[in-house]
Amino acid sequence: MTFTLSSSDLLDLSVGAAVLGTGGGGDPHIGRLMARRAIGSGHVRVLGLDDVDDDWFVVPCAQMGAPSIGAEKLPNGAEPVQALRTLETYVGRTADAVVAVECGGINSMIPLVVAAQTGLPVVDADGMGRAFPELQMKTFAAYGVSGSPMAMAGEFGETSIIDTGGDNARMEWLARGVTMRMGGVAHISEFSMDGRDLKRTAIPGTLTLGLTIGRAVRRARTEHRPVSEALAEVVAESGYAGVRSLFNGKIVDVERTVDAGFTKGRARFRAFESAAELVVDFQNEFLTARLDGELVCVVPDLICVLDSETGEAITTDRLRYGQRVQVLGIGTPPVMRTEAALAAFGPAAFGLDTPFVPVEQLA
Amino acid sequence: MTFTLSSSDLLDLSVGAAVLGTGGGGDPHIGRLMARRAIGSGHVRVLGLDDVDDDWFVVPCAQMGAPSIGAEKLPNGAEPVQALRTLETYVGRTADAVVAVECGGINSMIPLVVAAQTGLPVVDADGMGRAFPELQMKTFAAYGVSGSPMAMAGEFGETSIIDTGGDNARMEWLARGVTMRMGGVAHISEFSMDGRDLKRTAIPGTLTLGLTIGRAVRRARTEHRPVSEALAEVVAESGYAGVRSLFNGKIVDVERTVDAGFTKGRARFRAFESAAELVVDFQNEFLTARLDGELVCVVPDLICVLDSETGEAITTDRLRYGQRVQVLGIGTPPVMRTEAALAAFGPAAFGLDTPFVPVEQLA
Repeated sequence: MTFTLSSSDLLDLSVGAAVLGTGGGGDPHIGRLMARRAIGSGHVRVLGLDDVDDDWFVVPCAQMGAPSIGAEKLPNGAEPVQALRTLETYVGRTADAVVAVECGGINSMIPLVVAAQTGLPVVDADGMGRAFPELQMKTFAAYGVSGSPMAMAGEFGETSIIDTGGDNARMEWLARGVTMRMGGVAHISEFSMDGRDLKRTAIPGTLTLGLTIGRAVRRARTEHRPVSEALAEVVAESGYAGVRSLFNGKIVDVERTVDAGFTKGRARFRAFESAAELVVDFQNEFLTARLDGELVCVVPDLICVLDSETGEAITTDRLRYGQRVQVLGIGTPPVMRTEAALAAFGPAAFGLDTPFVPVEQLA
Repeated sequence: MTFTLSSSDLLDLSVGAAVLGTGGGGDPHIGRLMARRAIGSGHVRVLGLDDVDDDWFVVPCAQMGAPSIGAEKLPNGAEPVQALRTLETYVGRTADAVVAVECGGINSMIPLVVAAQTGLPVVDADGMGRAFPELQMKTFAAYGVSGSPMAMAGEFGETSIIDTGGDNARMEWLARGVTMRMGGVAHISEFSMDGRDLKRTAIPGTLTLGLTIGRAVRRARTEHRPVSEALAEVVAESGYAGVRSLFNGKIVDVERTVDAGFTKGRARFRAFESAAELVVDFQNEFLTARLDGELVCVVPDLICVLDSETGEAITTDRLRYGQRVQVLGIGTPPVMRTEAALAAFGPAAFGLDTPFVPVEQLA
């Protein structure tokens, strides 16, 4: 299904992408400003995954780095296309379309920036169905697409290409080192592939899902309905496994550091009218939620912390003492829960010693 | 002047390169083993700088990293050529010759490894006239050659290309980050240029100088002559500004850390028959020598610490308490003492607050 997206859609998309960002993925607000500037009064053409030709060359475009640095160190705006052009030159092919690596956070927007600046269409899909902190944590990788060669661009016009053959974890390791030296944030093109592979490995419709979630949140606020209810309705119509309410309360403690290029830490939430405590750990994104010590949601299922008043998602770098929040769990689609997928981005990939159990069973 | 170099020359070259390494440049012993394996019973063709055609494409090849890591983490042997091939593919040109970036330490040998494996000739020249710790510290850079694009190869077959346009210091910054992520040692091709630029910016004859110094040290030992005397004779016939004896004594203290990809520290030497103390600071290579607080030699002049018994140079990562040594200063050629050269690798480039004064005036 082809449609056009204009600047007036960006606010809804940024709200939805913040939910799908599960605390990370970079601040979609900054991505929205970049996309708004790039699109202006024009528009971007969005193609359904089925509209992609098998032989097309499709390039995923993204920002990489610690969200808490990305929130302060803004791009000059030319980096995303420069990363694309660097990749194109290296592989000797020209992109037919761009796509998101993750539908959450700022990376919902970066492909729109590239599309607006180049005239290329954007495919309505991504490789995470949410946001993840590391490059190899993608359905693209889980189902056999190589991340290399990868192109990176920094704010001073510098570029880097990394080629680790089929070793996506090593690509992440090297690229993270370059990102830190580029100041903590870089723009990248990686996991380039033909349309055939994209259709085989991507999660379809996630750009639309972000837009739909954003619209639902906006309407719920206008209609004074609970945002979680509106979210549940939208998610029920997607391929995702439904929404669970995990907790209502306020933030009583946040530990957060930037370590090895990631925003890492832990937040504690206390219930309003009992001693119940929720503890959420994060590495850019939320990883686990434990209610009085019992696991209630674990990666790759989505943990979303929504502001109780606005219904908007709060990113890990914006968690503050005293915020009143509702914490939701969203079950991921089946393609993200296979053995191959969990090997790429399940609990063990984060060093957690818990097996994956769907949020529908836990909460 | 063209000549051929065989495995039997490597021991002399490694001894001479250790002297020219001024404490750093990586352990030439390991480079010698790599070159011996690559050359086998064959040989490498060495061309004088004047024999290089103006339109040739010449590629400097080197190892990069902290010497104390390079001494323990040996390459698999394929990396140097892989870095060259990666650069060739990226720029779309094939090398006509290779050259050393530095004539000191292991990097006197890496071009020989590449030459032996590819059949290319090696140019008898380099871009440092010694060894320096950072990529932009080259006569190539001082006289306007761009280091970018730069290719890097690691032990697992991974490659990286870095392109910072004319900003060689930023190239160093990014490449150092990649080197650390490649395990502390990487192999690189950078500052590729045509023969015209090489002739304009390189220091001629430094491969021969390394060989000649090595032979002189060997003969001096056979003839029971002081090594410093033999060195002075050889250097007097080169473009270098002569040899000064700075100190005789033993090492009484060594502080050494690996920090940000470099081997950094300070060594203290006590005289045999007085309370005189020499303090030498280093960042991979020796930077300053102070005798009882007075500067007696400063970068880019060479500070060489020779084992009193063997006459062989001791690298910064092999300095040990109790070693009996002679410390020499060697004055660099005029091309390394111009304003442009000192801006690239003089005392200020290392954050030192002393102006450059030639060792002939200081000691």
